Amino acid sequence: MPDKTLRIHRAAGRSSVNRRPVMLAIAGDSAAGKTTLTAGLVEALGPERCVSLCTDDYHRYDRAERQSLPFTALHPDCNHLAIMEQHLQLLASGQPVLKPVYDHSIGRLSHTELLEPADFVIVEGLFPLYSKLARACFDVTVFLDPHEQTRRAWKVERDARERGYTAEQVLGELDLREPESAAYIRPQRQHADIVVRFAPVQGRDDPSVPLSAELLLRPTIRHPDLSEVMQPGVHRAMHLELERDTDGRPVDSLHVHGYVDAEESIAVEKAIWASIGEPERCAPECLGGIGGGERSEPLAITQLLLLHHLIEAGR
Amino acid sequence: MPDKTLRIHRAAGRSSVNRRPVMLAIAGDSAAGKTTLTAGLVEALGPERCVSLCTDDYHRYDRAERQSLPFTALHPDCNHLAIMEQHLQLLASGQPVLKPVYDHSIGRLSHTELLEPADFVIVEGLFPLYSKLARACFDVTVFLDPHEQTRRAWKVERDARERGYTAEQVLGELDLREPESAAYIRPQRQHADIVVRFAPVQGRDDPSVPLSAELLLRPTIRHPDLSEVMQPGVHRAMHLELERDTDGRPVDSLHVHGYVDAEESIAVEKAIWASIGEPERCAPECLGGIGGGERSEPLAITQLLLLHHLIEAGR
Repeated sequence: MPDKTLRIHRAAGRSSVNRRPVMLAIAGDSAAGKTTLTAGLVEALGPERCVSLCTDDYHRYDRAERQSLPFTALHPDCNHLAIMEQHLQLLASGQPVLKPVYDHSIGRLSHTELLEPADFVIVEGLFPLYSKLARACFDVTVFLDPHEQTRRAWKVERDARERGYTAEQVLGELDLREPESAAYIRPQRQHADIVVRFAPVQGRDDPSVPLSAELLLRPTIRHPDLSEVMQPGVHRAMHLELERDTDGRPVDSLHVHGYVDAEESIAVEKAIWASIGEPERCAPECLGGIGGGERSEPLAITQLLLLHHLIEAGR
Repeated sequence: MPDKTLRIHRAAGRSSVNRRPVMLAIAGDSAAGKTTLTAGLVEALGPERCVSLCTDDYHRYDRAERQSLPFTALHPDCNHLAIMEQHLQLLASGQPVLKPVYDHSIGRLSHTELLEPADFVIVEGLFPLYSKLARACFDVTVFLDPHEQTRRAWKVERDARERGYTAEQVLGELDLREPESAAYIRPQRQHADIVVRFAPVQGRDDPSVPLSAELLLRPTIRHPDLSEVMQPGVHRAMHLELERDTDGRPVDSLHVHGYVDAEESIAVEKAIWASIGEPERCAPECLGGIGGGERSEPLAITQLLLLHHLIEAGR
């Protein structure tokens, strides 16, 4: 149980020379929105206080090498997971790592990079919650679980724009990856403190209506008290429900509809800040950005909730 | 001192002789039923596989010394909590400890004792979940939270029988301890995976009806799937409900009424064993013993659930 040793060491406190950073994991399948979610958090905290790491950098093979292999990038054997675990442990104990860098635009491992832990370290990728030892490194864990049709559309658009694929190639790759996604990526969902699901609002699939977010808040960490601001009838576009997750476990489900208006958002944002003792503060303006100057209010609320957890864990 | 941490780890090694035990915490106030719960588990697993430790042994002062102190045994300053934490870490990493022994019958620290960790280590007492470091040592955590009138009656009876107090002395001591119980003991409840509440069945306070148990099962660990055996209407004396805990957190609440009959018990016991892959097994007969040859079915179910978690964590 090396995970327990690590938990003991991390719990032993921050009095060491190497101050231990707060670690956030954002796991999810390809094009689930991990980078967008991460970018807003890094900008809100400031790059001098918050660094991020993508576990795709631990790919064992280049894109060309993968062509002849019997598995995709979603297979554990296609990644240096033992080194990823080692680097997560080093970062969690306040030490720097020299890490590889995978360049998605050319599909190659290009160089190495020194990463020194700041106050906050965000680790996003396919595998941050894959093993018990990796999970023991984190203070807060998130799994991004968007509606599958939404994710496929995001992946086609992003891979065509940034990685030089055709739509047919991306859809073919998605089908090829599906069994490995089911076997290795999606099971990480059960280990997340927060599961985030972006999806079209049911019955309102007009593409001009922004996507909604459903946040499953597991009581594995202490969430801000939203019961007052979420009283039935008080807010139309956000509500909190006691539910069972797909595996039967009790969970709080926070629904944030895409058509939420600014007044409602601000009330919830204030409640979240109040829960960390800063009732007058408003969300940083950088939250909610989805590229091209567009903004998603459900994404902003999601990011604010994660900021809350990062700040609380750092106290 | 990351260098020292590393040296210690390398010296300890993965394949070391010190196999790390599964650790269970049972926290709760005085006379909450911790020893009774523990005794059945140790008997079921066998003393060669399971040892127990009481954190009362870390009292800093004898009963006589405490008379002149401005706090009771429930105050952290009245206990060697840093040493308790150190011993928990040593045990969690598979190492033996030489621990003090507090003899309740005479109210004195009497001698020391070598405790070598077996496959399972049960730590019961006032403080096992008090600090983050202590909590990091455990695989499964329990808080005993009996109905307060029940606990007071248990304490009067036990302290008069075993510790030479009069009923008046015990009731006076309970009043004296109340603020420290509220400040230091009861807050540990929030950190338990399972909260166990023994209480008279409401509206059936005939003392001949055995106490019921309410088990709050937090999704911080994976509980056995009882949804099938607990379908509404199938069982009268046991039911599982999705609830909010007193602090608002989502939780499963398993009610086991004191008048549960053997047939119902056996169905639930089989479901629990089935969830660890032994569907034909029945509960060991030693479970449920409450002294004097008496037996409590709700206690037996509680102990069986904990056995499930110990065995699962050891796999």
